[in-house]
Amino acid sequence: MTAFGVVASDKKARVGTLKTARGEVETPVFLPVGTQATVKGLTPDDLKAIGVPMILANTYHLFLRPGADLVAKMGGLHKFMNWDRPILTDSGGFQVMSLGFGIEHEVGKFMPLFGEKATEEIGKIGEIAKRTKLAKVEEEGVTFQSHLDGSVHLFTPEISVETQLKLGADFIVALDECTSPLHNYEYTKASMERSHRWEKRSLDAAPKKNMFGVIQGGPFEDLRIESAKFVSQNNFFGIGIGGALVSPEQMRVILDWIYPHLDPQKPRHLLGIGTIPEIFAAVERGVDIFDCVAPTREARSGRIYSSAEHYNIANSKFATSREPLATSCKCYTCQNFTRGYVHHLFRANELLAYRLATIHNLYFMADLMWQIREAIKEKKFAKLKAKMVRY
Amino acid sequence: MTAFGVVASDKKARVGTLKTARGEVETPVFLPVGTQATVKGLTPDDLKAIGVPMILANTYHLFLRPGADLVAKMGGLHKFMNWDRPILTDSGGFQVMSLGFGIEHEVGKFMPLFGEKATEEIGKIGEIAKRTKLAKVEEEGVTFQSHLDGSVHLFTPEISVETQLKLGADFIVALDECTSPLHNYEYTKASMERSHRWEKRSLDAAPKKNMFGVIQGGPFEDLRIESAKFVSQNNFFGIGIGGALVSPEQMRVILDWIYPHLDPQKPRHLLGIGTIPEIFAAVERGVDIFDCVAPTREARSGRIYSSAEHYNIANSKFATSREPLATSCKCYTCQNFTRGYVHHLFRANELLAYRLATIHNLYFMADLMWQIREAIKEKKFAKLKAKMVRY
Repeated sequence: MTAFGVVASDKKARVGTLKTARGEVETPVFLPVGTQATVKGLTPDDLKAIGVPMILANTYHLFLRPGADLVAKMGGLHKFMNWDRPILTDSGGFQVMSLGFGIEHEVGKFMPLFGEKATEEIGKIGEIAKRTKLAKVEEEGVTFQSHLDGSVHLFTPEISVETQLKLGADFIVALDECTSPLHNYEYTKASMERSHRWEKRSLDAAPKKNMFGVIQGGPFEDLRIESAKFVSQNNFFGIGIGGALVSPEQMRVILDWIYPHLDPQKPRHLLGIGTIPEIFAAVERGVDIFDCVAPTREARSGRIYSSAEHYNIANSKFATSREPLATSCKCYTCQNFTRGYVHHLFRANELLAYRLATIHNLYFMADLMWQIREAIKEKKFAKLKAKMVRY
Repeated sequence: MTAFGVVASDKKARVGTLKTARGEVETPVFLPVGTQATVKGLTPDDLKAIGVPMILANTYHLFLRPGADLVAKMGGLHKFMNWDRPILTDSGGFQVMSLGFGIEHEVGKFMPLFGEKATEEIGKIGEIAKRTKLAKVEEEGVTFQSHLDGSVHLFTPEISVETQLKLGADFIVALDECTSPLHNYEYTKASMERSHRWEKRSLDAAPKKNMFGVIQGGPFEDLRIESAKFVSQNNFFGIGIGGALVSPEQMRVILDWIYPHLDPQKPRHLLGIGTIPEIFAAVERGVDIFDCVAPTREARSGRIYSSAEHYNIANSKFATSREPLATSCKCYTCQNFTRGYVHHLFRANELLAYRLATIHNLYFMADLMWQIREAIKEKKFAKLKAKMVRY
């Protein structure tokens, strides 16, 4: 029996428990992203040693490769990747939409998926993006071309839900269209209304599953409030907050707009966020769940998280450092290796570099969320935020 | 106090114990190669879980990057990479020579370092190799250009030994010239004689260290016997057998020639070998120690070791297999994941693919060596060989 309950709060910030058949998850929580049925470079045992209670997997990627039918045949995603804790799958909508307006609007500017560093994540999307729009949105759903082989697929709310159920996720997300900040009011409104119809169709396709609806509405107050009410009032298990890839400032404004309209008994997931300042700003505004590729992607580029200041371990000044990656960090990497060694591994392009840095950054995130939960329980969230967010 | 002793034998095949301050190693043993102070993709804990008692590290690579002085400053190679079991470093001679006659003789044919699959291992050597010879052998030593940045270095017996001592290896190897099968008798003889002078200089530079001398002499019986006598009669801790990269048939012949001339109390290391049939043929001829990049390199290309038949896990027929990589294998990968999952990881170019396959292949090798030792103890080596080597 899956259930969510708030157990402590400090102003709007709150600690909750998400009970599932695969274990209990305390929120606020950060979900590492296992795009292709693996958190890059790590085993499930690594994730458990870090203290990761739940992960996110990407429906778009798994839909294309290896395919949901194959995963189902292999016993579902948990068994396939040997992960027995909860999994949340996204709807695939964000990736698919990125193939459409993302290309039209040159979304490299605001969508991390199209940033220069992103091509490794999503194969050829980055290159294709420069040439032509690859997705078309209609009432029925969205038609898109695979970034892997150019094959054409139709993605509907029903297909998204069916795919997620085949994968066997513990939590699924209704299909929506994530609009771009460059869309005007009229498009954003029409898109939001279509997203609501899609989300209702998603619910109809799996009325008894643990589904997150998604709030859209771009940077427009009335639309965001309308969408917040829609998701809160329909029979979703949780509330997703989408399209927040505007700017950190706008994100805070949007969260403030919608807060009064959110059902307090439902868990809230800010999709695809985020950075440490964003997480603090969102927890402060009542958000419970986060996911983001940044800690893992940045780890693979040598960017090391630290409560002092993030830094690039490939910098030559670390060549002879006998310090751990972060002072007093209890992660496996810091307990066993020096900055000098990890520096060498990055300079030598060794596989172990990516793994050790990823373990560290994910541990940093898990520990941060633990600190946030403890601070909320002790009514000291503002103090922790002041310590961790200096700008 | 480091010591070697034979504890069991079955004809020429023997089980020995190599006692060191960092633990005891039972022979015949296979040493995984940690070229750049890391066995690619694995932590020292992974290696221990596999049952690896000792590794080999490459002096040439570490000399160039990060440099022996830096490693010494970091507390030595063991501390640098956090490996507390024994390490054997090679002399660097093989890599340096490969830059010389390897290029001149188009050694891709016989030297794995120059094979198509090898470029990932040694950076740009493969490309440079097509253009120009990069090493020059003289009495003093060998002058070579770095494959990393083209910088020019002089490598002498004294510098090789000094480098290995700075790295802090438990076992070191005297500098020799590894000749090519394409060298004629005159060159091979002159080279061997120079190698003997180099090896004596190596001994003089570190008379009390655990050093392996190296037998050369190419495919010529009188030279091999002369070299075997030289190494056996000088004050080396162990006997290296070099330049055996001729053909498996020639390797067997050479081992038969030298066998009567080897000091039975010294451990024998067949450098850079090998495949399973080669290992059986060499153990049968009294060899104790092996090292080879094949199990790790092949793992990263998806070639999975199995007592039935090695196979490529990327083959589409494995996409839905729920079997482990090898039946009844006790390795971490086989205990936790299916062929179908590992197949998916390779198809999706996921980092975890390389790690899981490497763990499996190294476990296969460790288990094979354990089986060999048990068979020798029970005087059943021939039976095991007949079972494992079908050609």
